[in-house]
Amino acid sequence: MTTTDTPDLSAHIERGLADLRDLVAMQSVSAQGRMLPETAAAVTTLLEAEGFTVARYPGQVAPVLVAEAGDGPFTLLIYNHYDVQPEDPLNLWDTPPFELTERDGRLYGRGASDDKGEFVSRLAGLRALRERHGGRLPLKVKWLLEGEEEVGSPSLEAFVKDHAAELKADGVWWEFGSVTPEGRPILYAGLKGIVCLELRCRVAASDLHSSTGAVVDNPLWRLAKAVASLRDEGGRVTIPGFHDDVRPPSEADLAAIARLPGHGEALYSAYEVTRPLGTPEDHHTRLNLMPVLNVNGFHGGYGDGGSKTVLPAEGFVKLDFRLVPDQHPDKIVELLRAHLDAQNLQDVEIVELESHQHPARSDLNDPFVQTAVGVAREVYGQDAILNPSSGGSGPMHPFMEYVGAPVIALGIGNVAGRVHAPNENVLRRDFETGVRYALEFMDALGGTDSRSQTEH
Amino acid sequence: MTTTDTPDLSAHIERGLADLRDLVAMQSVSAQGRMLPETAAAVTTLLEAEGFTVARYPGQVAPVLVAEAGDGPFTLLIYNHYDVQPEDPLNLWDTPPFELTERDGRLYGRGASDDKGEFVSRLAGLRALRERHGGRLPLKVKWLLEGEEEVGSPSLEAFVKDHAAELKADGVWWEFGSVTPEGRPILYAGLKGIVCLELRCRVAASDLHSSTGAVVDNPLWRLAKAVASLRDEGGRVTIPGFHDDVRPPSEADLAAIARLPGHGEALYSAYEVTRPLGTPEDHHTRLNLMPVLNVNGFHGGYGDGGSKTVLPAEGFVKLDFRLVPDQHPDKIVELLRAHLDAQNLQDVEIVELESHQHPARSDLNDPFVQTAVGVAREVYGQDAILNPSSGGSGPMHPFMEYVGAPVIALGIGNVAGRVHAPNENVLRRDFETGVRYALEFMDALGGTDSRSQTEH
Repeated sequence: MTTTDTPDLSAHIERGLADLRDLVAMQSVSAQGRMLPETAAAVTTLLEAEGFTVARYPGQVAPVLVAEAGDGPFTLLIYNHYDVQPEDPLNLWDTPPFELTERDGRLYGRGASDDKGEFVSRLAGLRALRERHGGRLPLKVKWLLEGEEEVGSPSLEAFVKDHAAELKADGVWWEFGSVTPEGRPILYAGLKGIVCLELRCRVAASDLHSSTGAVVDNPLWRLAKAVASLRDEGGRVTIPGFHDDVRPPSEADLAAIARLPGHGEALYSAYEVTRPLGTPEDHHTRLNLMPVLNVNGFHGGYGDGGSKTVLPAEGFVKLDFRLVPDQHPDKIVELLRAHLDAQNLQDVEIVELESHQHPARSDLNDPFVQTAVGVAREVYGQDAILNPSSGGSGPMHPFMEYVGAPVIALGIGNVAGRVHAPNENVLRRDFETGVRYALEFMDALGGTDSRSQTEH
Repeated sequence: MTTTDTPDLSAHIERGLADLRDLVAMQSVSAQGRMLPETAAAVTTLLEAEGFTVARYPGQVAPVLVAEAGDGPFTLLIYNHYDVQPEDPLNLWDTPPFELTERDGRLYGRGASDDKGEFVSRLAGLRALRERHGGRLPLKVKWLLEGEEEVGSPSLEAFVKDHAAELKADGVWWEFGSVTPEGRPILYAGLKGIVCLELRCRVAASDLHSSTGAVVDNPLWRLAKAVASLRDEGGRVTIPGFHDDVRPPSEADLAAIARLPGHGEALYSAYEVTRPLGTPEDHHTRLNLMPVLNVNGFHGGYGDGGSKTVLPAEGFVKLDFRLVPDQHPDKIVELLRAHLDAQNLQDVEIVELESHQHPARSDLNDPFVQTAVGVAREVYGQDAILNPSSGGSGPMHPFMEYVGAPVIALGIGNVAGRVHAPNENVLRRDFETGVRYALEFMDALGGTDSRSQTEH
């Protein structure tokens, strides 16, 4: 693997950006069931043009695609998704969310980074790889794309389990990753699990005049009491038993954490954060190795200008818990119920919103992980930042459990990428390097023997 | 005062209903600044026809009228308002809101009860009183009418303070009151005060991915902690010092409370309340004599279907505190600030939404109050329900503070009167009895000596 026979990447990059523009224009918002079959069809067309055979399976919300092409001693399974988060609040976007717009070196649009940009950059790299090898691929590439990732991948675990033989691979390339402002790639070898819940409380059939608050309980106070009881001032979850199953980090995990640069300064600066949690010293441990509770939304009663002296009949709160190995999602819900009951909040209902996701973490010493790190050093010209786990979540666990392969995440995101928020973006620089990384990573894997991968 | 020389009231009632029809047709919606000077002019014409001299003063939204007529040992100040609530949603009215329509014993129309019906029934009684006394009034009647009550009476406190001498009276007749379905009049001798606030919290310039909740604080958790800390499970406000200035109820207050019928069963049934606060025994004490905190609204972050794994940048809560004598609104805001600071919630901002209103409560033993109760028993043929205070709020305090007179509320409202809502109505029965009550109440006051009123 040298760069002497590297094709001119600029044409592949431009073609990739054109693909990205087309895909961003497709409003594939899974939470609202918008344009999902159409986007699956567009992705299929792109893959078939590169020689993939594409199988399309029904999902609960959107089709699941499994594509396969190439042949060689190594089988790589790539995982991406073609759905995106809702675009609201629309008024905070500087340019229309579904029009890819370049400005000051960044490409803005919903999905520009998460995850259409990731998919398209890898596809462009694969095109270059085919060009380098005279139209063929030196490895077997299996590509799994789903359209339900932003609603918690409700079909994926069962799908991976049921299609374990079809998906068998020597390594799994995860759907995202990111690059520092200085151009250092960040690799993740794990993901937190997640449980998304709604708490609901209702005290009457309709709203009442607020003077009756003297003799009728308030659903928003009851929900506030519930939320306040879930963590302490420092952010530590206070549900009894919540931390019992947390696996202590390995020595390799701790060593990797110790090598991680910075202490969140870039994040805090990009978002003008006024209330950091934790200390600089425990920043990476908190973000990557510790479980956390988030309040995603809280709504009930009057919300317009001025005042309205109303006692609302009901309210709701949206929560997510991010879990680490070996916490079990179902057990977390049981512990929450017991905790609310113990707080005399039996009337606060728990509604499970999505499929839960188990936490997952690969062995940092695995050769597949080490190959990803080595190629990253070569392509990006700097040592990669190897993170034992992202602070984010995703359905990584079924791959490790049923495909039986290590998983690594490397991608084109950036710290100011505003994924899930208005003005989502990717740096053009990172998109371009991402195309080159895809080319060289797959070429390197094509030169390895799968047997050496699986006998460590 | 006997009924032997009582004029035939039917003519006065019919004339009063004609006046009400004319006034309901005037769309004096203060929130939208509609027809306020015109309605003030129509009210002026009606009063001048009964011998009143009417002074018209500018208010912030609509003219303030002060009318005066008659002479005698007792001076009565009547307070009413000529503005109404907006009529929307129009589609829920069974007949046009600005056409007084009689159906099944009820008169429907915006303002039929609140407050044009109240004003007109009193005016009709005053006409009958003049007839009984050969064209003169046996007492001095001062009539204050504003056109800003439905937008929180922004001019009233300063107006009453500035015109204290002009408004001096021996008793104040409040703008509303109600009658039970069984025909028992309900008198109120006080109103709670009110402080409407917003709590705001912000932790970043824009929303973040919820995985960063491990290292960025959550504004909705902080607001939940604030709200949860404001009261206990039983609804008692837990802000230190909050109850310090609560005046213990008098023996007369407690005796009146003990005589109040029911324990909230009608309210709980009408609204299908699943979580009453307090016990049947303390129901009326809580509703009428104790301060209370209400959460009117709580909003922040994602609120649509399913989940969105976002860490919201900000959130807000709308609150009202209902106060009782001698709590001071400004002090309550100061105590809240100190309490939040003590909870390490210095970053939770307090925004004051409207003019505060002080609580007010008259002495139930005052002869003016006792006269109102005695006449009510005679006119309605049943013992009045005497309530030391409504659970609601209004600008009563300035009258007690600056006019220096006790205040009593008795009127023609009914529990199904839908004030502020579509199909506002008054029972014809209650309108007719209201005219007779106005006649006899004012005649009784005309037979009393103001000196005996002020030396108890």
